[in-house]
Amino acid sequence: MNKLTHQAEFSTPIVTTGPLRGSSRVYTRPKTAPHLKVPHREIELHPTAMEPPVRVYDCSGPYTDPDESLDLERGLERARTEWVKARGGVQAYQGREPGPLDNGGAAGKYLARAFPVRHKPLRAAGPGPVTQIELARAGMITDEMIFAAERENLGRARAQSDAKRRHVDGESFGASAPAFVTAEFVRDEIARGRAIIPANINHGELEPMVIGRNFLVKINANIGNSAITSSVEEEVDKMIWAIRWGADTVMDLSTGKNIHNTREWILRNAPVPIGTVPIYQALEKVGGVAEDLSWEIFADTLIEQAEQGVDYFTIHAGVRLSYVPLTADRVTGIVSRGGSIMAKWCLAHHEESFLYERFDEICEIMRAYDVSFSLGDGLRPGSIADANDRAQFAELETLGELTGRAWARGCQVMVEGPGHVPMHKIKENMDKQLRECGEAPFYTLGPLTTDIAPGYDHITSGIGAAMIGWFGTAMLCYVTPKEHLGLPDRDDVKTGVITYKIAAHAADLAKGHPAAKLRDDALSRARFEFRWEDQFNLSLDPDTARRFHDQTLPKQAHKAAHFCSMCGPKFCSMKITQDIRDEFGAVHAPDIPVEAKEGMAAKSVEFKALGSQIYLDRG
Amino acid sequence: MNKLTHQAEFSTPIVTTGPLRGSSRVYTRPKTAPHLKVPHREIELHPTAMEPPVRVYDCSGPYTDPDESLDLERGLERARTEWVKARGGVQAYQGREPGPLDNGGAAGKYLARAFPVRHKPLRAAGPGPVTQIELARAGMITDEMIFAAERENLGRARAQSDAKRRHVDGESFGASAPAFVTAEFVRDEIARGRAIIPANINHGELEPMVIGRNFLVKINANIGNSAITSSVEEEVDKMIWAIRWGADTVMDLSTGKNIHNTREWILRNAPVPIGTVPIYQALEKVGGVAEDLSWEIFADTLIEQAEQGVDYFTIHAGVRLSYVPLTADRVTGIVSRGGSIMAKWCLAHHEESFLYERFDEICEIMRAYDVSFSLGDGLRPGSIADANDRAQFAELETLGELTGRAWARGCQVMVEGPGHVPMHKIKENMDKQLRECGEAPFYTLGPLTTDIAPGYDHITSGIGAAMIGWFGTAMLCYVTPKEHLGLPDRDDVKTGVITYKIAAHAADLAKGHPAAKLRDDALSRARFEFRWEDQFNLSLDPDTARRFHDQTLPKQAHKAAHFCSMCGPKFCSMKITQDIRDEFGAVHAPDIPVEAKEGMAAKSVEFKALGSQIYLDRG
Repeated sequence: MNKLTHQAEFSTPIVTTGPLRGSSRVYTRPKTAPHLKVPHREIELHPTAMEPPVRVYDCSGPYTDPDESLDLERGLERARTEWVKARGGVQAYQGREPGPLDNGGAAGKYLARAFPVRHKPLRAAGPGPVTQIELARAGMITDEMIFAAERENLGRARAQSDAKRRHVDGESFGASAPAFVTAEFVRDEIARGRAIIPANINHGELEPMVIGRNFLVKINANIGNSAITSSVEEEVDKMIWAIRWGADTVMDLSTGKNIHNTREWILRNAPVPIGTVPIYQALEKVGGVAEDLSWEIFADTLIEQAEQGVDYFTIHAGVRLSYVPLTADRVTGIVSRGGSIMAKWCLAHHEESFLYERFDEICEIMRAYDVSFSLGDGLRPGSIADANDRAQFAELETLGELTGRAWARGCQVMVEGPGHVPMHKIKENMDKQLRECGEAPFYTLGPLTTDIAPGYDHITSGIGAAMIGWFGTAMLCYVTPKEHLGLPDRDDVKTGVITYKIAAHAADLAKGHPAAKLRDDALSRARFEFRWEDQFNLSLDPDTARRFHDQTLPKQAHKAAHFCSMCGPKFCSMKITQDIRDEFGAVHAPDIPVEAKEGMAAKSVEFKALGSQIYLDRG
Repeated sequence: MNKLTHQAEFSTPIVTTGPLRGSSRVYTRPKTAPHLKVPHREIELHPTAMEPPVRVYDCSGPYTDPDESLDLERGLERARTEWVKARGGVQAYQGREPGPLDNGGAAGKYLARAFPVRHKPLRAAGPGPVTQIELARAGMITDEMIFAAERENLGRARAQSDAKRRHVDGESFGASAPAFVTAEFVRDEIARGRAIIPANINHGELEPMVIGRNFLVKINANIGNSAITSSVEEEVDKMIWAIRWGADTVMDLSTGKNIHNTREWILRNAPVPIGTVPIYQALEKVGGVAEDLSWEIFADTLIEQAEQGVDYFTIHAGVRLSYVPLTADRVTGIVSRGGSIMAKWCLAHHEESFLYERFDEICEIMRAYDVSFSLGDGLRPGSIADANDRAQFAELETLGELTGRAWARGCQVMVEGPGHVPMHKIKENMDKQLRECGEAPFYTLGPLTTDIAPGYDHITSGIGAAMIGWFGTAMLCYVTPKEHLGLPDRDDVKTGVITYKIAAHAADLAKGHPAAKLRDDALSRARFEFRWEDQFNLSLDPDTARRFHDQTLPKQAHKAAHFCSMCGPKFCSMKITQDIRDEFGAVHAPDIPVEAKEGMAAKSVEFKALGSQIYLDRG
């Protein structure tokens, strides 16, 4: 792991680069589109494993590839811009000129340096298909679809056995992931609205990915400064740090000064989709007074961010005037920032939300850049007490309505979900979202399954996230240990990402995703064979696994030891099992009597008889 | 938080005492048994809350009560010994004399100091009822039952509304927890075998508690040295540290030298039930050679530990000779220490397990002291690949048979469960256990829902634990971040306990336990009203919550601030909601138009029409 520093300029972000321990970034080139260089991560195993490297999904970008030349001052290569231009329907134009208000009026030493390079923005040239959903409906398989499909398959070729869907051990609640993901399948899912590829035509640095119930469950990491703390450099570092550990998308939720410049630095260096909540910046532009928000300020902010290349916008258009009173008796009122801002605006003006009223115009702007909707759940519950209440579900019904309207206007849509929900109420959320929103991808924050553990809300929410991911949520928004308490730092970001990788992977396993179990099995074999280095390297966080092991057994020789300090050599069950196999050969050798099934059945009957008698005794 | 040190002797353990931040230990005295002093914890709220203190379950023992005089060299008060003697049926006798083998032959400076005080052991005097299940079947309500019931109710009196079971929001999958727990209900549950009170008659220091599907979900923390690391002092400290944060029972899994003396120090200072796995010590007695284990050594070890006061024994009697071959094709073989030891013994001797063969004699010994069974799952899966396989379920069927046999011989029983299980296979474990084992309490280790996160297995397993707890597991055995990598230290113990308190509480909430939601609601109100100190103090770990908050806003003034550093003042949704309520009064004031339900229904119809059209378009 290296620190990438730049020649002189003190304000160049310092970020972590270099491969993960034991891994290398590799590329495959899809047969139908050899100009695409699709990344994966390969984990090399010890020669004694006699196994090929284990390939895993990679969203870390070029930062983990030592052969890439990186320059944060120029940003990543913009290969994707060529794909966009090649298929036409877009035009370059003189974009909006950023003004002081875009950075919250920051000036002098408080103004973050502008990104050194400027690119002319693109937008739709006319009514022809520009967004992925429009292209998909028109029957076009885009480079983005091919790229995303190749990633989902981890670059492997279609096998004979994929032809007929192989038996998969799992329960997917009606999702229908195929054994092999074709680009045509991706196209079809996008055309139906059941998946999205968040990919602003101005985000040329993007490595496209797909979000939908029939693909690997994705996770999002939130970063962003607040008025209280943090800087541009920290946020760029957090973004690159988050994707290193597996964040599939990153939301920049900055709310302080320098929002425009911070976002530009992030986008130009981001290989993953970047999401924002434009109302935050709009509110900064009106000095933090919700009542002063206007359609004009908001629309201008949408265009500003769309030109920069933001891939998805959270739009809280479901917070309607009439729903605000439904929150009156809640324990925790409205807990979404965007939701509470819009509620205040509605009440102050005694008018319907302008986001709802002008929704078609919002669609028009977002379509022109292919910014995907993330329909915000401004009335999500902020406590167990408020879960699944009328306010929440009334808004969800409106989000269903808006999903249909956005689809009709050529926009890609996902829908945000809660929040705080006890376990027995989670599935109802998923089922209602699928029903109301026509299977548009669900994107949930947790949910937290209890309110009583601030400081551990990555865990209270990781439980809910794993469950709702299993039930069908397409992307899980992480929660860090600092939730409810403060702004996450670098360590919190990593903890949040790893926890959510666990939740997403547990969901993939339970859904029966054909690729998910391979990694579990490889790690379990490494564990059983005491290949310690392989066990560390196959884990989600090789550094921590190794450090924990080395706290008690630091010597290199212990990396080959047939035990760890948890049980010591005599009590290591895995060692004993191996001894058994060594000493007695295959334990199913014929001299070991295997009790016939009938014998066991007899025992079972016998016990049931005994059991019944006991029940009688106990009266 | 104070460190309790003793006058001189260097080997007196140093442990953490003093109340948790913002809490005090309080006692209630049950009307029917005023000689019992039943502990609870009360969390005092800020005067502005206008709410009484929040009472929570307390298993921390006298260590959190500053009014108690503590002396680790003498151990805790043995009040319970009087209850046991008072009801008769037991006799004191000259116990077995501990020998050098009991401490693994440790001598000289390697021998841990013996506990300074010795108590004469008690055992059953004859065939009359001695165990809680025998007493329950005989219709006797014991002090232990009254004590446990009082704790479950948090000391509150029965309310009028408890008479008819009040509506509870939850799904308990056929469990039937009452709104108010009477001692008679506890008795009935124990008589049926659906609950246990692990309470060796020689554990006079015990504050009794009940484990069963119709009570609060409990958690266990494992401690214990291994041949590689740790000392008596550390283990006593870990035990007291674990119960401080909420461990309901503690298992001493020591395997190195000094097992006897370590256990004595732990038991004499333990207010919670202590469990062990006697085969570990038996194996030490035969020099670690599994084949040399014998019934005599094992039986002697049972008596040794029963005389000391161990409350429950894990007995791996379900690992039968004929099941060992069923593990041959597993990815991770046998991963239970006890299971692998017994498998090796069976194969080496080519004989049925002596634990199975001599099970009735084991019952006889355990009954004489009321040591509860924890029927070990020696063939639990050690990887996702091996979950729910024939080896695992064959053993579970045998555990069902053994449950019936132990019940018939007057013993209390719980049954251990896995392990590593993907989410979609968890419920099958619970359902099969209930069916095979006649609803005896299930006690599971996790389960881990994926294998790919060593270093984070408290989280991979916390997900599974919350779910299986919801489905009906009575006690969850914690997993620490060090699982698979090394022996947990003090920090790992705390992380494991807090994670499992989250899982257990999330399960109680989902089951609809009447008391569970009170704490969530109190914390949520504190959160909404910016009572920061209350929010910290109501949390499972007040120290960490406060520390996280203070990392960015350390000043005392910030404890009254209407924001935190996560969002800052302008973007705090809770503040905005409060502003809304302040400015506009109750938001359901008549001047706010509440859209009629019909209006919403109309919208819904409208969207569905629109939606259908879109589906056609996309077709």
